[in-house]
Amino acid sequence: MAVLLSTKASTMEDWRDALLEVDPSLEIRLFPEAGNPAEIEAAVCWTAHDLGELRRYPNLKLLVSMGAGVDHLMRPPGPPPGVPVARLVDERLTQGMTEWVLLNVLRFHRQDPEYRAQQAARVWNELPAPDTARRRIGILGLGALGGDAARALVALGFPVMGWSRRPKQVPGVEAFHGEDGLAAMLARSDILVCLLPLTPETRGLLNADRLALLPRGAYLLNSARGGHMVAADVLAALDSGHLAGAALDVFEPEPLPPEHRLWAHPQVVLTPHAASITIPRSAAPQVVENIHRARAGLAPNNQVDLTAGY
Amino acid sequence: MAVLLSTKASTMEDWRDALLEVDPSLEIRLFPEAGNPAEIEAAVCWTAHDLGELRRYPNLKLLVSMGAGVDHLMRPPGPPPGVPVARLVDERLTQGMTEWVLLNVLRFHRQDPEYRAQQAARVWNELPAPDTARRRIGILGLGALGGDAARALVALGFPVMGWSRRPKQVPGVEAFHGEDGLAAMLARSDILVCLLPLTPETRGLLNADRLALLPRGAYLLNSARGGHMVAADVLAALDSGHLAGAALDVFEPEPLPPEHRLWAHPQVVLTPHAASITIPRSAAPQVVENIHRARAGLAPNNQVDLTAGY
Ligand SMILES: NC(=O)c1ccc[n+]([C@@H]2O[C@H](COP(=O)([O-])OP(=O)(O)OC[C@H]3O[C@@H](n4cnc5c(N)ncnc54)[C@H](OP(=O)(O)O)[C@@H]3O)[C@@H](O)[C@H]2O)c1
Ligand SMILES: NC(=O)c1ccc[n+]([C@@H]2O[C@H](COP(=O)([O-])OP(=O)(O)OC[C@H]3O[C@@H](n4cnc5c(N)ncnc54)[C@H](OP(=O)(O)O)[C@@H]3O)[C@@H](O)[C@H]2O)c1
Repeated sequence: MAVLLSTKASTMEDWRDALLEVDPSLEIRLFPEAGNPAEIEAAVCWTAHDLGELRRYPNLKLLVSMGAGVDHLMRPPGPPPGVPVARLVDERLTQGMTEWVLLNVLRFHRQDPEYRAQQAARVWNELPAPDTARRRIGILGLGALGGDAARALVALGFPVMGWSRRPKQVPGVEAFHGEDGLAAMLARSDILVCLLPLTPETRGLLNADRLALLPRGAYLLNSARGGHMVAADVLAALDSGHLAGAALDVFEPEPLPPEHRLWAHPQVVLTPHAASITIPRSAAPQVVENIHRARAGLAPNNQVDLTAGY
Repeated sequence: MAVLLSTKASTMEDWRDALLEVDPSLEIRLFPEAGNPAEIEAAVCWTAHDLGELRRYPNLKLLVSMGAGVDHLMRPPGPPPGVPVARLVDERLTQGMTEWVLLNVLRFHRQDPEYRAQQAARVWNELPAPDTARRRIGILGLGALGGDAARALVALGFPVMGWSRRPKQVPGVEAFHGEDGLAAMLARSDILVCLLPLTPETRGLLNADRLALLPRGAYLLNSARGGHMVAADVLAALDSGHLAGAALDVFEPEPLPPEHRLWAHPQVVLTPHAASITIPRSAAPQVVENIHRARAGLAPNNQVDLTAGY
């Protein structure tokens, strides 16, 4: 039986090597060289894979996302019926995301764009000292990533709020859920961080109505998915000054087209979907463990709830 | 008896109000309105004060710096003989500095200057993922500020080293001291952070010889004092590419003259001595406590060792 890998060519071999290092007995095939379709027991995929293709493998027992997100596996036609789907919950992935969030929270909290502009103009001018205890951070999503970012921000002394689908308790974090909870949290978020999965419920969440609930002069960080935001609404909020700045890592489509206004907006800090990158060596042990679990007839760890869509 | 305040006009009243809030019975005078010199029991000063002037107060029992640093009180002629000197160790001051350090460590660690340049050129290109476990941070000075920055960086997963005058133990930090310890630490510091006090021993420490010991492509952060670095040597190291970048908050003189090359160097991120600002309300309780201690004939808390100079 064999494991099929499907991702961009540049990382395919890294993934193969990392999996073989954990379990040298694995037979690994690199898409599109799938060989005998009946021999594929597990598929480990990233965003470009054609999901219809997976239905050609009659003995597929496991589908694994190469990232924390699984929205790419939920597009029509979705995963083959009856095949459990697993995603990554990985320490380095989490660490990378927390760093991205901290960098961008501190950038705005510490008036870095203003200081960069002053430096460019050779202006020596001390701005009013920021007050950490009054800079309220709201985090959309309190899962593996949002929960860790919350913990790190609490440790730095920020007042932190978080929003999840189900009621949740995270030490030091004021927790909200549901549509009412969302409005209450937005109204008090000086910096809003989006770390939600992209699902039918969360698509387009960051639209004009929601952004209008933020305090004037708030900052937006989005490192979840481009589909969470209505880019035109974010741009309008930036243009009007309602949003004072945005740090954006994700877009729809990606790459962000070169003519898009977000590239050159003076209040936008942009990274090319690089907030947190899966390191095959770091993720391989959990993927191998899930392959072994599938063979033993066990449900995978970090299994995706296909009804909830994440 | 009275307390003399001396700082720039814009913060003098904040200081007075903050001290009176803690102890309304204090009689506070704002320099140069000192009144009867024999009535001055304590002086609370910042950098511009003329130290010779303090010798006119025969009953002075305490001199307090309005910041963590006391180099401004050590200039000739120095504090009046026999008068104890106290400095600030203040939670908000420490927090502000740790934020400045984290922002700039993460900026360089996360290739932010490269991503800013790519955004300006509308280039969508994911750079190799940074590896936190291999980004070694060396901190010069493991006192109130260096020790807290070290703790925060350890919590984020960076390998952290620190250098102090006397042997020291900080949890999770590899500690060095003395001239040999300095060379050993510099040789392994991918990011070097200066948080030393400015004393005759530390003046000019960041010179060409010391910078040459850093790994090629290292980054320098200096938020201690401008006098710690030889600016021409830092510029030469940046020009040659030996230093990949520098975040600088302090200069000699300040304000940094508008024609100085540091303003416009593409690898330099500059803030105008704003890394951490004393908030009078936050610092007032310890100043009042030290005034009470002086009246009771007790040595102040956070007393400066005048021999060591910090
Ligand atoms: N830019 C990048 O480089 C990058 C890298 C990795 C991941 N990501 C993105 O980050 C996302 C989050 O990852 P994760 O590992 O933290 O996911 P996770 O552990 O599944 O957490 C998701 C969180 O979102 C909440 N949530 C989901 N649907 C919701 C809804 N309709 N209303 C309110 N809250 C809702 C969940 O609530 P419950 O707690 O109630 O379930 C949970 O707290 C991924 O899906 C991916 O898109 C981006
Ligand atoms: N830019 C800003 O906004 C800003 C704001 C506040 C402070 N500062 C600067 O930050 C400095 C540090 O403040 P702090 O409160 O952390 O001071 P601190 O608590 O006195 O700590 C000083 C540290 O430096 C070490 N040190 C002193 N002389 C040394 C030498 N010759 N060789 C090796 N190590 C030496 C000390 O070693 P030991 O542990 O052995 O004593 C100690 O670890 C201040 O003096 C000030 O200049 C800047």
